[in-house]
Amino acid sequence: MAHKPIRLGMIGGGQGAFIGAVHRIAARIDGQFDLVAGCLASTPEKAHASAEEIGLERSYGTFEEMAEAEAAREDGIEAVAIVTPNHVHYPSAKAFLERGIHVICDKPLTSTLDDALALEAVAKQANAVFVLTHNYTGYPMIRQARDMVAKGELGDIRLIQAEYPQDWLTEAAEQDPNNKQAGWRTDPARSGAGGCVGDIGTHAYNIARFVTGLQLDTLAADLDAFVPGRRVDDNVNVMLRFKGGAKGMLWASQVAPGNENGLALRVYGTKGGLEWVQADPNYLWYTPFGEPKRLLTRGGAGANDAANAVTRIPGGHPEGYLEGFATIYTEAANAIRAHQSGGDVAAAMASLPDIADGVEGVKFIDACIRSSNNNAAWTSLA
Amino acid sequence: MAHKPIRLGMIGGGQGAFIGAVHRIAARIDGQFDLVAGCLASTPEKAHASAEEIGLERSYGTFEEMAEAEAAREDGIEAVAIVTPNHVHYPSAKAFLERGIHVICDKPLTSTLDDALALEAVAKQANAVFVLTHNYTGYPMIRQARDMVAKGELGDIRLIQAEYPQDWLTEAAEQDPNNKQAGWRTDPARSGAGGCVGDIGTHAYNIARFVTGLQLDTLAADLDAFVPGRRVDDNVNVMLRFKGGAKGMLWASQVAPGNENGLALRVYGTKGGLEWVQADPNYLWYTPFGEPKRLLTRGGAGANDAANAVTRIPGGHPEGYLEGFATIYTEAANAIRAHQSGGDVAAAMASLPDIADGVEGVKFIDACIRSSNNNAAWTSLA
Amino acid sequence: MAHKPIRLGMIGGGQGAFIGAVHRIAARIDGQFDLVAGCLASTPEKAHASAEEIGLERSYGTFEEMAEAEAAREDGIEAVAIVTPNHVHYPSAKAFLERGIHVICDKPLTSTLDDALALEAVAKQANAVFVLTHNYTGYPMIRQARDMVAKGELGDIRLIQAEYPQDWLTEAAEQDPNNKQAGWRTDPARSGAGGCVGDIGTHAYNIARFVTGLQLDTLAADLDAFVPGRRVDDNVNVMLRFKGGAKGMLWASQVAPGNENGLALRVYGTKGGLEWVQADPNYLWYTPFGEPKRLLTRGGAGANDAANAVTRIPGGHPEGYLEGFATIYTEAANAIRAHQSGGDVAAAMASLPDIADGVEGVKFIDACIRSSNNNAAWTSLA
Amino acid sequence: MAHKPIRLGMIGGGQGAFIGAVHRIAARIDGQFDLVAGCLASTPEKAHASAEEIGLERSYGTFEEMAEAEAAREDGIEAVAIVTPNHVHYPSAKAFLERGIHVICDKPLTSTLDDALALEAVAKQANAVFVLTHNYTGYPMIRQARDMVAKGELGDIRLIQAEYPQDWLTEAAEQDPNNKQAGWRTDPARSGAGGCVGDIGTHAYNIARFVTGLQLDTLAADLDAFVPGRRVDDNVNVMLRFKGGAKGMLWASQVAPGNENGLALRVYGTKGGLEWVQADPNYLWYTPFGEPKRLLTRGGAGANDAANAVTRIPGGHPEGYLEGFATIYTEAANAIRAHQSGGDVAAAMASLPDIADGVEGVKFIDACIRSSNNNAAWTSLA
Repeated sequence: MAHKPIRLGMIGGGQGAFIGAVHRIAARIDGQFDLVAGCLASTPEKAHASAEEIGLERSYGTFEEMAEAEAAREDGIEAVAIVTPNHVHYPSAKAFLERGIHVICDKPLTSTLDDALALEAVAKQANAVFVLTHNYTGYPMIRQARDMVAKGELGDIRLIQAEYPQDWLTEAAEQDPNNKQAGWRTDPARSGAGGCVGDIGTHAYNIARFVTGLQLDTLAADLDAFVPGRRVDDNVNVMLRFKGGAKGMLWASQVAPGNENGLALRVYGTKGGLEWVQADPNYLWYTPFGEPKRLLTRGGAGANDAANAVTRIPGGHPEGYLEGFATIYTEAANAIRAHQSGGDVAAAMASLPDIADGVEGVKFIDACIRSSNNNAAWTSLA
Repeated sequence: MAHKPIRLGMIGGGQGAFIGAVHRIAARIDGQFDLVAGCLASTPEKAHASAEEIGLERSYGTFEEMAEAEAAREDGIEAVAIVTPNHVHYPSAKAFLERGIHVICDKPLTSTLDDALALEAVAKQANAVFVLTHNYTGYPMIRQARDMVAKGELGDIRLIQAEYPQDWLTEAAEQDPNNKQAGWRTDPARSGAGGCVGDIGTHAYNIARFVTGLQLDTLAADLDAFVPGRRVDDNVNVMLRFKGGAKGMLWASQVAPGNENGLALRVYGTKGGLEWVQADPNYLWYTPFGEPKRLLTRGGAGANDAANAVTRIPGGHPEGYLEGFATIYTEAANAIRAHQSGGDVAAAMASLPDIADGVEGVKFIDACIRSSNNNAAWTSLA
Repeated sequence: MAHKPIRLGMIGGGQGAFIGAVHRIAARIDGQFDLVAGCLASTPEKAHASAEEIGLERSYGTFEEMAEAEAAREDGIEAVAIVTPNHVHYPSAKAFLERGIHVICDKPLTSTLDDALALEAVAKQANAVFVLTHNYTGYPMIRQARDMVAKGELGDIRLIQAEYPQDWLTEAAEQDPNNKQAGWRTDPARSGAGGCVGDIGTHAYNIARFVTGLQLDTLAADLDAFVPGRRVDDNVNVMLRFKGGAKGMLWASQVAPGNENGLALRVYGTKGGLEWVQADPNYLWYTPFGEPKRLLTRGGAGANDAANAVTRIPGGHPEGYLEGFATIYTEAANAIRAHQSGGDVAAAMASLPDIADGVEGVKFIDACIRSSNNNAAWTSLA
Repeated sequence: MAHKPIRLGMIGGGQGAFIGAVHRIAARIDGQFDLVAGCLASTPEKAHASAEEIGLERSYGTFEEMAEAEAAREDGIEAVAIVTPNHVHYPSAKAFLERGIHVICDKPLTSTLDDALALEAVAKQANAVFVLTHNYTGYPMIRQARDMVAKGELGDIRLIQAEYPQDWLTEAAEQDPNNKQAGWRTDPARSGAGGCVGDIGTHAYNIARFVTGLQLDTLAADLDAFVPGRRVDDNVNVMLRFKGGAKGMLWASQVAPGNENGLALRVYGTKGGLEWVQADPNYLWYTPFGEPKRLLTRGGAGANDAANAVTRIPGGHPEGYLEGFATIYTEAANAIRAHQSGGDVAAAMASLPDIADGVEGVKFIDACIRSSNNNAAWTSLA
């Protein structure tokens, strides 16, 4: 019944990074991966220092070198986690995919639409699984919401309200040279043309799409860089029109004091409504139209099979961000094993963000920027 | 110190109405008004039956008759509350204003922009006070928020998020002939061209304007009537651009299951943020950037003078909707008395929604409809 | 249908008082009373100054004088509200009851058990209604809770958790001579032997009794006066045993920083649980065992007849403390009119706290003090 | 910098268990342990089946056999996690401690006070570390609360309110033979004489003691078994008196519908108050007396060093139960390594529940039962 852990490598995630440590914990939580190799930073010196710090023995100076060496080893990595700034996603993912090494890549997919489309082509040809860590899709109550919508429990969806406010860039944090996060995330060369829209707007868009399954028709976006000198947007107002007639609004901001990671989703249909807030992820508010609001809890009486399938502990003992992230890793492990054993990879990927979601996310960024540059004209995804 | 109550009349508010009873309670709470006359319904029969039901002796069959008769009495009404469907606001307000009887009128000001402009002209000429009951401006913590913004405690305002979701029109309630509220509020002839946008969108817009003082530059609105057969909009998505560069979003809906009267306002500036929810009006969340969020409570340690000036009871004992509404009435009484005694009417009106706010509200409705009809193009107020 | 307002007098409630203004608003909200006379303070000078301040013409220097004079007038008061410090409740209530004037009296009933029993005897003989303003029983969702328990929707009640924390006496506020509230409420001569237990402990006890209908068997109380020099208790820990086997805990405190008026009640039975917090009174949390928690809202889909009977405005527009208080006044008006017309006074009093509740409250205070003095021994009500 | 994982064994935690899987995840999250051996169930057959299910190769049929064999191996386990029903804690812990194998043991320490004292004696003689997994002490905001109290930010502590309500035993779940959790936890032979008081009352007591550092003087406890046929208590009402004069109340229940794992702690001092709820563990409410309440968030602006030391990810991305549990494991690893390297074990144990806390927990259970059997008489810990 139990599987041997999958041998995992990591690109990025060295000293000063945030998301690398998150990926490492997420990969460990369910015991499905062993981190055995890495190229943890953008220079060999920093990469090796970072590897030593976390006790990683197989440390490489460049991802190209690592891809080649690991592919040649009998005990080489089976999968690689890519957690670098966005502009490195494409070349590094390509290097591993082309060698048949499975890729678990952070979002957004790439820093440009060209890269995204090129990577999509690579992924389609590759003999490997590609998973994008839109990690919020791993929260049990998001799985529950998606399942409820799919089963028609909300009726026809009319309205989506998605938002992701933060406040950490209220001031010009990128002017502090020690703030590496603010530095690369506001640098178009590393982050891509989208700032806030790419970093967190894509999460809000993805979660709305994931839960409702609705296809976007057009969007009208109004992007701003409020902080003087900032080179990318830090606030994103968007109106959404979905195929079939549903409407939505999406707000993402990095300059809204009092908001840490305020991702929230509200979905309303002809028969009921759902409301969810990422900071309190174990709760899902469900109102069947005309009845009292119900508080559905992860692990509780109202949790459905979709939620229970990714639940580790009983209700009232909160699971958090790392557990949701771990679910992405565990399902990635399932998909990788299905691939290795000739099983049904598509079935294993059914709830996992994949290359198509990644391309759509980059198209969303691109469309928002084009719309905003065109005075918020209604714009389709490319 | 104590004043004699002002003699008040009422137009509308008979059997089956909702807002009339609210106005009557609001007028009583602080003991500033005596209701002594009325024309409570649109036919003499219903008007008299309604008057008898509430024990009102001076009952009139039409507002014209009432205006004439009361103006002629020595003990005639000094002020009139107009709580009819929107299309009656203009003719009835005109009838009283022209006779020097003060008017306290429900929102939106009128059902058409032409009526609004005409009423504005009447009001400017009239020897009487005109107060619009955008009642949410009477909540103490809204007063506090406005005062904090005015004093610069939030720095320069960058972002406004205003919303007012409801769910009571999720289904075609207007097809039930007994549902008078749904009937007139979805009838363009009585409500005006705007449905949701007029009924509650104006409240969200007003509260945003009231708290921030920002002037609208343009808006882009996407209106829908989701319920088959509905003749007016029931959902309103709007993006806002304010003069000076602030941006905003406004959402109002009557088809969002799980929302009763979900008016909420969030304002973010360079120095801090404020968040307020109408259903829990005694709380104001304040975050100075970089510090923990603080829960300011009406009557509590963090309440400022602006809030305390309209507070009746200590913190932890909630005041509600009726008290906020009563504050509008009490301040209207102050303005009326200032007018009667040759005092400073403008000072007494400093926090009161007036004819200009009413006209702006109708212009907001008009602009939303024009924008929406023009594919959500950016549109200025007329 | 409509009634003429009942002529009301008031004892206490002058300058510097808190609860008098509350009673006056509560009496006005539903238009059932006209305040026409009063003895608003403990000296004639202060009484007359207070009367002038609120525009009350019939002002008396002592309650005895007032009772005599009003009883003699044809248009004398029909009812009197007693809102003095506790030690005046007994003599003043007696003076009016014995003259057939209905009494609406603040809690606790009296400052001593002897007074309570004496007043009970007076009330039983009197040709008048006696209502005690345990005002929290007027909240709609408390009515709903009581009705749900009575109908067996929670099954057999096993557990009660009642609490009422405040923080306003965390420091020795009574040493500030300008703080009249702190002064009399911590003075055994005026407040009675109980401090916190009398002022707010009785509310918590009353609300538990009101909702569940359970009869107390015994209690074990541990009272403290934490603030040096304080002459009465400021914190009350109590364990409760009810007849039939239910158990409970009750906590009241005036020294718990961060609590304004934190009255809360939780009730658990074999079939479900209810949770309610006074500061957010429009919400009642209901969990049928084994199902998701439901948020019942005043005026909303889950509100029952008992709640709706005392509801003024739709759900989502909050009613507050003053409306709950007004319900007590309005039901008192109904009882008075039933008395005046030979109707069913008992039926009109069905949800109203009466003299028996008042006596029980004083017995509760007495039992807590006796228990605490006896090392928290289990103690019955006298 | 990085350490090799510590070789870990596990006793208990096989099929049908809940807490075993929790311990395994907690041990993995920070990568400080490798699970390499186990005796996962009470019979060899079930033990081996459970081991196979989780892919554990070194599986033993009895803990005695395992202790002997592992102690003899060069690569034998360095530490063992004991997650059995309570009555097995003592003999199994003894077996490993006496062989110098470090023990990480679930709470309560033992099923009897005799066993607790015996185990304490063993632990004191042993050349090994003993850690008790009162896991809630690992939550960052609990660490923050403890630090704030220790630094005097609340002034002198006056009041503690601790509670832990659940509802899973509202009905006689133990009569379902498939419900292993309900079975052993209500069986005095396996759980000990305390039911609810042992299972969760000890957690509430421990967290109160951990945060405040106050020493208990006496307690008065009223225990009930509400469900017919239940052999141990399922509801616990306790009043607490601490040395120095602080008072408290503690409530634990398994029959309170609507409560999942409602552990909550409130602490009030002369200068301020703190409030925390386990289900929303990333929030700590702090009120400096006379100022607005502040919402301190894990990872946020108000988090102190004590919280930050055990924080993995930024504010707004919630950490949960498993992360708090993992902190206990990681600090246990630190203590074990200090022991192995001749370092300062006491310093490494500074925030870790140890054998003394375990003994005190069992004494708390014992005192509650003795008090309750003596009509809730004030009782000291043995």
